[in-house]
Amino acid sequence: MNQDNSLRGEFSSISPAEFFYRNRQMAGFGNPSQAVYSTVRELVENSIDACEEARRQPDVRVSIDEERSGVVRVTVSDNGTGVPYDEVPNAFARVLYGDKFTARQRRGTFGLGVTMAALYGQITTDSPLIVVTQTNHATGRYYQLLIDIENNQPVILSDKSHEREGPGTEVTIRLKGDLNRSRERIYDYLQLTTVASPHARMEFTINGSSILKMGWWHQLLPTPTTPSKPHPHGADLELIRRLVADAGERSLHDFLVESFQRMGKRTATRFLKFLALNPRQAMNTLGREDISRLSSALRSFDGLGRPDGKCLSPIGKDAFLTSVESVFAPSALTYGSRGPTEWSGNAFIIEGVAAIGTGARAADVPALYRFANRVPLLYDSSEDTLTKMLKRVNWVQYGVGSTTPVSIFLHLCSTKIPFKAAGKQSIASLPEIEHEVLSLLRELGRSLKKTLKRGERSVRDAQKKREFDKAMKQVAQFSAELAERDVVPSTAELIRRLFEVDHHV
Amino acid sequence: MNQDNSLRGEFSSISPAEFFYRNRQMAGFGNPSQAVYSTVRELVENSIDACEEARRQPDVRVSIDEERSGVVRVTVSDNGTGVPYDEVPNAFARVLYGDKFTARQRRGTFGLGVTMAALYGQITTDSPLIVVTQTNHATGRYYQLLIDIENNQPVILSDKSHEREGPGTEVTIRLKGDLNRSRERIYDYLQLTTVASPHARMEFTINGSSILKMGWWHQLLPTPTTPSKPHPHGADLELIRRLVADAGERSLHDFLVESFQRMGKRTATRFLKFLALNPRQAMNTLGREDISRLSSALRSFDGLGRPDGKCLSPIGKDAFLTSVESVFAPSALTYGSRGPTEWSGNAFIIEGVAAIGTGARAADVPALYRFANRVPLLYDSSEDTLTKMLKRVNWVQYGVGSTTPVSIFLHLCSTKIPFKAAGKQSIASLPEIEHEVLSLLRELGRSLKKTLKRGERSVRDAQKKREFDKAMKQVAQFSAELAERDVVPSTAELIRRLFEVDHHV
Repeated sequence: MNQDNSLRGEFSSISPAEFFYRNRQMAGFGNPSQAVYSTVRELVENSIDACEEARRQPDVRVSIDEERSGVVRVTVSDNGTGVPYDEVPNAFARVLYGDKFTARQRRGTFGLGVTMAALYGQITTDSPLIVVTQTNHATGRYYQLLIDIENNQPVILSDKSHEREGPGTEVTIRLKGDLNRSRERIYDYLQLTTVASPHARMEFTINGSSILKMGWWHQLLPTPTTPSKPHPHGADLELIRRLVADAGERSLHDFLVESFQRMGKRTATRFLKFLALNPRQAMNTLGREDISRLSSALRSFDGLGRPDGKCLSPIGKDAFLTSVESVFAPSALTYGSRGPTEWSGNAFIIEGVAAIGTGARAADVPALYRFANRVPLLYDSSEDTLTKMLKRVNWVQYGVGSTTPVSIFLHLCSTKIPFKAAGKQSIASLPEIEHEVLSLLRELGRSLKKTLKRGERSVRDAQKKREFDKAMKQVAQFSAELAERDVVPSTAELIRRLFEVDHHV
Repeated sequence: MNQDNSLRGEFSSISPAEFFYRNRQMAGFGNPSQAVYSTVRELVENSIDACEEARRQPDVRVSIDEERSGVVRVTVSDNGTGVPYDEVPNAFARVLYGDKFTARQRRGTFGLGVTMAALYGQITTDSPLIVVTQTNHATGRYYQLLIDIENNQPVILSDKSHEREGPGTEVTIRLKGDLNRSRERIYDYLQLTTVASPHARMEFTINGSSILKMGWWHQLLPTPTTPSKPHPHGADLELIRRLVADAGERSLHDFLVESFQRMGKRTATRFLKFLALNPRQAMNTLGREDISRLSSALRSFDGLGRPDGKCLSPIGKDAFLTSVESVFAPSALTYGSRGPTEWSGNAFIIEGVAAIGTGARAADVPALYRFANRVPLLYDSSEDTLTKMLKRVNWVQYGVGSTTPVSIFLHLCSTKIPFKAAGKQSIASLPEIEHEVLSLLRELGRSLKKTLKRGERSVRDAQKKREFDKAMKQVAQFSAELAERDVVPSTAELIRRLFEVDHHV
């Protein structure tokens, strides 16, 4: 917006698609190497979310083909729910369109991710987005879609029946991209995805050659999350206004109990008494001033229990330890967790694993792996609040000096991750989150200290365990070949349990 | 977007205002201290832009009043063009609305800045945005506005005539904000604004007390920028499609010459010959394949001169040296500049000043002040490409060791700054920009080396100059009092010229 006489009459509005077309670097599509990475990432996140909705162990296949120098075709397929057919054009080719916003943990951002990738593909290669999807008990469908950027509307080039092996979705995007500069990051991303989603399996092929095939470290699917009511601390004036508009003649007391979590009948009574408001007053008789007082009192009300955690899906101790073990084979490891608590009414949990025997040697601080809502974050680490908190801890005090290779895996899960940008690479600093992260890191530090003290013995154990581990893997490989199975079963959980007593911190 | 069977039929679209309401931390409104800073910043940027449009020396007044703990009222007034009255509601209270996008250097982002501040104020204090504006030869107008967030539409609470001293705009926003934690940043921001806009004056008061009053270091207004035609390297398929749609029966040759900068008749002929296309073919007969070929050939075409720099407004040697001198009083300083060149068709210039005798002592690298389109960047420095390039230079080689206090001021100006997020705090890494920044830093390094060699003499000169400077300031102060003028004239330019021969690198 600019105040401008000379261009009077030339004011106009732009569509959100146009905004992100002009500012694509804000959504992670700033250059050809980042674009390939972001495309894979957005598609994989959607796929795992869809599989979890379907209560199936995610089996996600990523393939990238380099058609000619600088032009790649990215295809991601899953065994998820499929997308309702009449929603496909809007869901994939319209910015800020998606399934209804509810307060529960999700991997993707509402209405931006895959559409941004499609938009980038379209403007760099003129190719439509291709979607093949199949919902349960239905024949699959095939779509070719473009985005009308100026009007933010889908353009359907093709829409027809299509046989598919089973339910799920496969999306193909052709884009200008630098595969050489992005392949390593994509590898790391997929590997770390199996750490944060140990129930998922990732497969990655480039030009037909298999690059990575791993996962299914842990058999249990995460408990399904359920949307929760708003937390009183999130009751900004916009939210209150919307709730009040729906409340009709309901009484103030009933309104509070029905609209918010942690507002039991007694809490609501106490709260209204404190505010000197009449519990039986009908909502539609509240004045603007009352509503404003209500909002600010709710936001600062102290007498509330912990927020509802059912909207969250932490990885959990057993699964997290198993996946770190499977991927990094550390010599010892420990788990910790804090929460649920909340920032501005958004519930969150921070959990972490500290692992000895992996990570850079001779660093002042442990190596850090960041995860947000089970998504690995690989870019922009230095401005991330998790990194800042890691640096704030005095690690030497916990015996983590320059010769001990230690890695920390931190997972923040929340109904809303305060990402600094639409590209979802780093987490903004908020006092509530900072506080919990610091506490968790110190807790992990204390555990590390105990383990490191055991010193020599641990090293011997680790050696023994590594040899055992190697042998078991060979046995598993051999058995898989005998059984003519494609996938080698994971032995990590077995090993971990065998060594648990001695081994875990 | 999420693929979800269980919520079938619950897909929907959200307005851009709703998107930024949910993701306000992406636009710089993540917490109460950042919110105050971002509000000031967005208003000041708009104000200076408006004054430059009016060809007046910007006189911008920022006042912040703390109404009660945690609630502040921010008012910014300017002597700019004023806003056309019928555009005020949309321009201030509708996201993604603004004056038409043209390819020239601007401080603000299109359609987001002030509206975000208004939105944040509204949801935290329930207060409308207040705008008082006056265009030339008209009576002023007063508005109170709210934003209908769900529909992204302005709500007009008040709209009436209002007397004002003269043309210009004054905007008031009441918001929840942490003044204690933001005041120092705001001070730095306004001070550095006078470095990057030496023709502007900033005034800052808190609760009625004057905190800062400085600027007008340099009398010349920047040369007005003029929008330029698109650069061929920016011809992505979306742009080409739009240009072709307007081209009608024009010939391919005429189309190229008229649509793009740096496409003279001879260049266009050569380009089409190379592509084996008929220069006389009518645009409306081009097939999809032709258009796609045209786009990719334009984007990679090498035989072009430097991009048009008339759309850019660098600070310039004289003004930049004067403003750094005025604010930081270094003992020696040097200027360098690279460009215009382009990234993806967006013209840019990088210019810089290196100053000795200011900045942190005992650091490996010089202190860095970052500017983008004359706006100081104060947050998220470590992920910024300018910071990364600074660290890539081996400063010891230029004699900048641990005992030499040196500061570098870098200004990137471009028709489009590739900000990493809508909060506009750090610049994304792009090879074209990296290359020019590195070259400039090395050039500044070589100049520094020469100066530092002169060693002792410089130190003596600097001392002499500082004394002279002090005396002249007293004279100016005294003269101003005699003349009963409120503003003390700047002496920095005078001093700089007097000492130029010895002093400049």
